[in-house]
Formats: sequence, structure tokens, C-alpha cells
Amino acid sequence: MTPHYLEDFAVGQTFGSGRLRVEPGQIARFAADFDPQPFHLDDAAARGTIFQGLAASGWHTAALTMRLLVEGGLKPAGGIVGAGGELNWPRPVRPGDELHLESEVLEVRPSKSRPEQGMIKVRTTTLNQADEPVQVLVANLVVLRRAAAATAEKESGR
Amino acid sequence: MTPHYLEDFAVGQTFGSGRLRVEPGQIARFAADFDPQPFHLDDAAARGTIFQGLAASGWHTAALTMRLLVEGGLKPAGGIVGAGGELNWPRPVRPGDELHLESEVLEVRPSKSRPEQGMIKVRTTTLNQADEPVQVLVANLVVLRRAAAATAEKESGR
Repeated sequence: MTPHYLEDFAVGQTFGSGRLRVEPGQIARFAADFDPQPFHLDDAAARGTIFQGLAASGWHTAALTMRLLVEGGLKPAGGIVGAGGELNWPRPVRPGDELHLESEVLEVRPSKSRPEQGMIKVRTTTLNQADEPVQVLVANLVVLRRAAAATAEKESGR
Repeated sequence: MTPHYLEDFAVGQTFGSGRLRVEPGQIARFAADFDPQPFHLDDAAARGTIFQGLAASGWHTAALTMRLLVEGGLKPAGGIVGAGGELNWPRPVRPGDELHLESEVLEVRPSKSRPEQGMIKVRTTTLNQADEPVQVLVANLVVLRRAAAATAEKESGR
């Protein structure tokens, strides 16, 4: 698929993704490496906690969302390079959940100081198999401009 | 270490963490699972990109930050349970970097609808070995109140 340059993005565009199943063993493995708390490691231990059963670390949900984004339809030129953003986890991801994304472009703006690039603001909602949101990420992404790509091609052709 | 209940937190408190070295192979392994883009997978491929060399996925930095938070001095009662927050990556994490955290409590507020808990807002800056910030996370965390814990103990003692 052709990458999308800054000029190809417009407010209101939407992009989808494939689907990814969260295997039960994956949740505890990610947690052992990065978020070793009882409610992410063991179902029995999670029963008496705020999660009332095994739940994926929010950072695991974020990482799985990134996997779907990289393989999804957004495809910004230069790759998916985030400068930062806002993140919310309205409900937990459970073992066996199947995730997919809905992304919408909220802003498109050229950089004033760097003519070869710009930023887009994208809201990406991660949904489970019941279409309930499990994460909402509003991220600012650095995207190359088509003009910059044309210049680079010209230079490399010299 | 004794956990901290909502009543134990106050605006302006600071908490530190241990240190964690980012092994070179770890960066590509995390990227292969969650963020398979050239600048996170291979140093040679990363040279011609915006990162100008191998850089950890921002989600890897976030996950490593969580590991340091869980093992650090914050220790909220009920565990570290984030409802969401804001995330920025001012500079990339490089192979061999050694990370540590500085956390500061920005807000403490009891819940109006749920008397057994409250929220704290905490800014956690992840710093490399040169004390340069690589991530700034402002997160809202759910924390149990001491009163709730006392009630639970009384009930379990009946």
C-alpha cells in the first residue's frame, strides 16, 4: 500500500485495522516483564481486586493497539512516529478478547519550522469483540510532506 | 513497604525508583512483537529515518516506566491502577540507556460517588543516564482510602 503524505490526510478521514486475539497466556507474560501486579498475573488473585478478574495491563493494550496501527490503513509516510498524546482505558481487556481499531483524523497541520514535515492528530479507539471501547488514544504523529519526498528523490538522482 | 492510602498522599510529594538498563536486544524484541517499524528493529535501517539510529518504541519506554513504577516508592494501596493520562516522548531511548523515574503528586481528590476510593494525579518523568527526560507521563491513578481498608478488615473479622 502507498504511504500517505501530510497532503493526503484530511480532517474527518477514518481508517480501520485488522483484528488481533489476546491469548490468555500473553496477558500474564507481558505483566511479568512490565507490570507485575496480581490483577495482571493471576485470575484467582485478581478476583478480590478492582478488576474482579484477570485484566491486561493498560500498557499491553497500548502495545497491541500499536501493532494494529502499524499493520492498519493509516500508513503515514515515514512511519508511525508519535510525539505524544492522551490515553484512556474505559474498560479492561480480558483473556480471549479480540481487538480492532477505528482511527479518525482530527487535525492536519504543516510545521512552521520544518518545511519537510507536519503533524496530524489522530484519535484511535481500540474496541473489543462486543464493539466496546477498551482504549482511546489521541496522538500527535509526525508525517512527511510530499514536497520533501520529491526533493529527496531529486537529490538522490543527481 | 507499607502501601500508601489516599490519606497518605499530598500535593508536592516526590517518589523515586530503581534503575533499569535497556539491553540492545530488548529493543528489537519488543518492536517485533508490538511496533515492527525499521527504526525500532535494526540500527542500519534506522540511520536514514527521523530517529537517525535504533530507538526504542515509545510503548516500550512506557512499559519499562511501568516496571519501575511498580517497584518504586509510590506504592498506592490497591496497586497502580491508571484510568488514563497524557504521555510525551521528548527524546528517544537508545540501546544501553539506563532509566530511572522521578514522580511528583500533582492532585489528591476523594471520589464523590465512591467513598472507598479516590484519585491522585501523578507526573512521572523517565530520565536516562544523562538525566535527560525521555518520557513524561501525567497519569490519574485510582487509590483506596484508609477508611475503606478499615471497614474491610472489620467485616472479615466478624
